[in-house]
Amino acid sequence: MATAVCPGSFDPVTVGHLDIITRASKMFDSLIVVVMTNQAKAPAFTEHERAALLKTATAELQNVVVDTYDGLLADYAALQNAAAIVKGLRAVSDFEYEFQMALTNKKLNPRPETIFLPTSAEYMYLSSGIVKQIAMYGGDISGFVPLCVLHDIEKRLKKNAPVKDT
Amino acid sequence: MATAVCPGSFDPVTVGHLDIITRASKMFDSLIVVVMTNQAKAPAFTEHERAALLKTATAELQNVVVDTYDGLLADYAALQNAAAIVKGLRAVSDFEYEFQMALTNKKLNPRPETIFLPTSAEYMYLSSGIVKQIAMYGGDISGFVPLCVLHDIEKRLKKNAPVKDT
Amino acid sequence: MATAVCPGSFDPVTVGHLDIITRASKMFDSLIVVVMTNQAKAPAFTEHERAALLKTATAELQNVVVDTYDGLLADYAALQNAAAIVKGLRAVSDFEYEFQMALTNKKLNPRPETIFLPTSAEYMYLSSGIVKQIAMYGGDISGFVPLCVLHDIEKRLKKNAPVKDT
Amino acid sequence: MATAVCPGSFDPVTVGHLDIITRASKMFDSLIVVVMTNQAKAPAFTEHERAALLKTATAELQNVVVDTYDGLLADYAALQNAAAIVKGLRAVSDFEYEFQMALTNKKLNPRPETIFLPTSAEYMYLSSGIVKQIAMYGGDISGFVPLCVLHDIEKRLKKNAPVKDT
Amino acid sequence: MATAVCPGSFDPVTVGHLDIITRASKMFDSLIVVVMTNQAKAPAFTEHERAALLKTATAELQNVVVDTYDGLLADYAALQNAAAIVKGLRAVSDFEYEFQMALTNKKLNPRPETIFLPTSAEYMYLSSGIVKQIAMYGGDISGFVPLCVLHDIEKRLKKNAPVKDT
Amino acid sequence: MATAVCPGSFDPVTVGHLDIITRASKMFDSLIVVVMTNQAKAPAFTEHERAALLKTATAELQNVVVDTYDGLLADYAALQNAAAIVKGLRAVSDFEYEFQMALTNKKLNPRPETIFLPTSAEYMYLSSGIVKQIAMYGGDISGFVPLCVLHDIEKRLKKNAPVKDT
Repeated sequence: MATAVCPGSFDPVTVGHLDIITRASKMFDSLIVVVMTNQAKAPAFTEHERAALLKTATAELQNVVVDTYDGLLADYAALQNAAAIVKGLRAVSDFEYEFQMALTNKKLNPRPETIFLPTSAEYMYLSSGIVKQIAMYGGDISGFVPLCVLHDIEKRLKKNAPVKDT
Repeated sequence: MATAVCPGSFDPVTVGHLDIITRASKMFDSLIVVVMTNQAKAPAFTEHERAALLKTATAELQNVVVDTYDGLLADYAALQNAAAIVKGLRAVSDFEYEFQMALTNKKLNPRPETIFLPTSAEYMYLSSGIVKQIAMYGGDISGFVPLCVLHDIEKRLKKNAPVKDT
Repeated sequence: MATAVCPGSFDPVTVGHLDIITRASKMFDSLIVVVMTNQAKAPAFTEHERAALLKTATAELQNVVVDTYDGLLADYAALQNAAAIVKGLRAVSDFEYEFQMALTNKKLNPRPETIFLPTSAEYMYLSSGIVKQIAMYGGDISGFVPLCVLHDIEKRLKKNAPVKDT
Repeated sequence: MATAVCPGSFDPVTVGHLDIITRASKMFDSLIVVVMTNQAKAPAFTEHERAALLKTATAELQNVVVDTYDGLLADYAALQNAAAIVKGLRAVSDFEYEFQMALTNKKLNPRPETIFLPTSAEYMYLSSGIVKQIAMYGGDISGFVPLCVLHDIEKRLKKNAPVKDT
Repeated sequence: MATAVCPGSFDPVTVGHLDIITRASKMFDSLIVVVMTNQAKAPAFTEHERAALLKTATAELQNVVVDTYDGLLADYAALQNAAAIVKGLRAVSDFEYEFQMALTNKKLNPRPETIFLPTSAEYMYLSSGIVKQIAMYGGDISGFVPLCVLHDIEKRLKKNAPVKDT
Repeated sequence: MATAVCPGSFDPVTVGHLDIITRASKMFDSLIVVVMTNQAKAPAFTEHERAALLKTATAELQNVVVDTYDGLLADYAALQNAAAIVKGLRAVSDFEYEFQMALTNKKLNPRPETIFLPTSAEYMYLSSGIVKQIAMYGGDISGFVPLCVLHDIEKRLKKNAPVKDT
C-alpha cells in the first residue's frame, strides 16, 4: 500500500498523536501527516509552528513527512493519491464525528478508505486542549507531549494569553 | 392530528432536512417548519434567507408552511396549538441533546409531544455545517442540498468570508 | 392520521409502557398495542397473559386495542395498514437498537414511519426485566407497574421459578 | 473521610447542582463547592455572583463551604488536601468528558479519587445553559433553580444582553 | 503491507460483510477472512457452511482466502504473521466492544494493528441476526445477503427451527 | 463515612476489580465486597469459589470483608446499613446499565448513594468474560488477574468445559 494521509489540527502534537503516527507509519510505505489549517478554530500555535513541532517529533520516522493544507481533506487526499486516511479514535464522541467525516469524504472522493486506529489505553484521556489548559496554568505537561518538543510547547503556551480550546 | 411543528436552524436546508420534513408532512394535517433564530450562533444565512430557501425547497408539499421565530420553542408550539414537535435524529450525540430539549419543553409546555424520526441511512452523515465547510472550499455540494436551492446556496457561501459552524 | 402500531414484548407491562401508550393514543385515531411473540426469548408471561395484562392496563383508553403477533413487525404494520410504528426511547442503548430496527423495517415496508417518543424522566430507569428481578426476590414493585395489574403480576412472578431477563 | 471538592462553573446554580451538593455533603465531613473561573467561556454571572448564589443556596448545609479558584482542579484539590472530587453525571456525553478529566487529574495528582454521583432522574434534563436560554426569553425557570435565588437569577438574566451558552 | 486478517462469526455473510471485505482487500496484499468458531453462541450455520458461503461470496476477490479457527484471534493473527486485523464498525455499541477486543488483542500480541473501517451508510442497519430473523418468518432478504448465496441461505434458514441471535 | 458495599459477580476477580476495591477501601471505614449470586447467569466459578478468590486477592486490605448474597442489592445495602454502593465504570455501555440500576436502587432504598469510580486507563479493556475466554484457549492471563489467584483461576478454567460469558 502506497501512501496514507494522517490529518489533524495538532495544536500542539501530543504523545497520543505520536503513538498513532508511529503505528500508522509501519502499515504504509509513506505517511503524510497534514496540519489542516481550517480545523482549529482559534489555534494557540500557527500552522507553521504546528508543522515544525510535528517535524521535530517525527524526525526518526523515515517514511513520515509533514505538510499543511488549507482546504478539504478529500481534495488533499486526491492530490496525494492517497490509498487511506488514518484517524486515531479515543472515545464514543470521537467516533461519531469521525464516522460522519469518513462518510462525507467517501462521498466527495470514493478512493481513499478512512481507517481508524484505536488509541492506546494510556493515551485515551489525552487531547491538545487538555495540554493547553494545563500548560496555561503552569501544570506539568511532560507526560503529555513528546519530550523533544516539550520545551518549545511550554515556552509558547506560558507566554501566551489564556487560550480557549476543546 | 392537526398541526405539528418542525423546528431547526436550517443554516442552510439540506436534503436530510427535506427528507424529515417530507415524511413528517404525511403524518400530520399541517406541518409548520420554523426557523428558530436563536439556535444558530453565527449563522451563514440570515433568518429570512433561511426561510426563503425552505419555502423554495418545500414548495411542492401542500400542507407545509415556513415560519421564523425568535423565542422559546415551547412558547411557539403553544402559540400554534401544536400537537407535536418533530425532530430528525441522526446519531447518539443528536439523541442526547434532543432528549434533553424534549424533556425541558415538556416541563415548560406539557401538551405537544416531541416525536423523533430516524434520519434515512443515506443522510446520516449530513449536516448544515458540513455543507458550509465543503462549499466554502469550492467542493461539490450538489448531493447534499435540494437541487432547486443549490445555486442560491453555492452563490451565497462562496462570496462569504469563511464561516465557522458545527 | 389513522392507525399506529406500538409493538413490544411487554413481559410484563410497566408504568413506563403505559406512559408511552397513553401519550401515543392521543396522537392517533387508533393505536394497536401488539405483543410480538418472537421478541422475548424466554418470557415470564405467556403471550396471552401479557395481552390480558395490557388490556386491563389500557381499559380506559378508548382508541387502544391489544393484539398479539408471531411474525415480522413490517408484515404486521402492512396488515393493519398502519401509518406509524411508535416506540418509546429511554437510553442510548435503546436508541441504537431501535434505530437499526427502524431502518430495517423501512426497507421491508416503506410505508409506516417509525416514530420515537422520549420516555418521561421518572420512568427512564424502568424495564420489564428490572420489574421481574425485583418481584422474584420479593421486592416492592408497586411503583413500577400499573396498579390495576399489580396483584396479578406479583402473584405470577412469585410462584415462578427464577426468571432470566435483560 | 475528611474533605471533598465539588467543582463546576455554576453559571448559575441549578436545582440539579443543589441535589448533587446535598447528597455529597452527607458522605463527607466537609464539602468545598468551588467555582472554577476558567471553566465557563463567556459566563453570564461573574465568579463572585456565582459564589454568592451558591452560598445562599447552600446556606442550610452546615458542612458545605463555597470557594472560587482560577487554576487547575488538580492543584486546588492538593491545596485543600481533598480525599475526593465529586461530580454529578447526567448523560453519556457528560460521562465521556468527565471520565477524561478524571484520568487527567489522576495523572496530575494521584491522591484524590474522582467519584461520580448519578443525577436524580427528575434533573437529568437540566443545565445552566438551558436555564439561561429560558430566562432570556422570559420563560418560567422557577422549577429549575433553587427558590431562594430565583429572584436574583431572573433579575440578572433579564437585564442582560442575550447570552450564549452550552 | 503483506497480510491482514478479517475475523467474524459470519452467521451468515451479509452484503455489509462483503462491503468491508472488498474494501479491505484493496488495501492489503492478501486478506484472510476467518470464521471464528468460538464467537457465535448457537450458530444457525455450521462453521463449514459459513466458510462455504464466504468462499462463494468472495470468489471474485483474487487476494482473499477464507479460513476457520477455533481459538484466540491474537494467536491466529500470530500464526498468519498478520500486520493488521480489520473490523467493520457500524454503531457506537460495536465501537465499544471492538475497542475492548482491540486493546485485549494488543496486550496478547502487540504486532498486528487492529484497524476499523466504517460501514457504508446503506449497510449500517444490517446484521446477521436481522437476516436470520427476517428469513425465519419468510421475509425478503434479497437486499441483505450477496445474491450468489441468497438461495442457499434462504433454504437453510427456512427449514430450520427458530433461531435465536443478536 | 462508615460502610460501603461493592457488589458484583466477580466471575472471577480481575486486576480491574482489585483496583476499584483498593481505591474504594481508602475512602471508607469499612468496605464489603459482595458476590451477588443472581448477577452471573451461568457462572464459571461457584459463589464460594468467587468469594474465596476475592478473600485471597484482598487479604492485605485491612478494612475489606467479602460476602455473598442471593437477593436484591437494595436489601443487602439496607441490611449492612451502608452509606454507599461503589461501582467501577469502564465504558459507555457500563454507564447506562449502572445508571439504570442506581436509579432503581435509589427508588427501592433511598439511603445509600451509588458512587461511580472511573476504571484506571490500563484496565479499561478488562472484564471477567475476556479473562475466561482467553484462559479457556490457553492464552496468558497473568496480566489480567491478581497474581496470588492466577494459579487457581487457570487451573479451574482449563479443566472446565467451554464457558459462555459476556
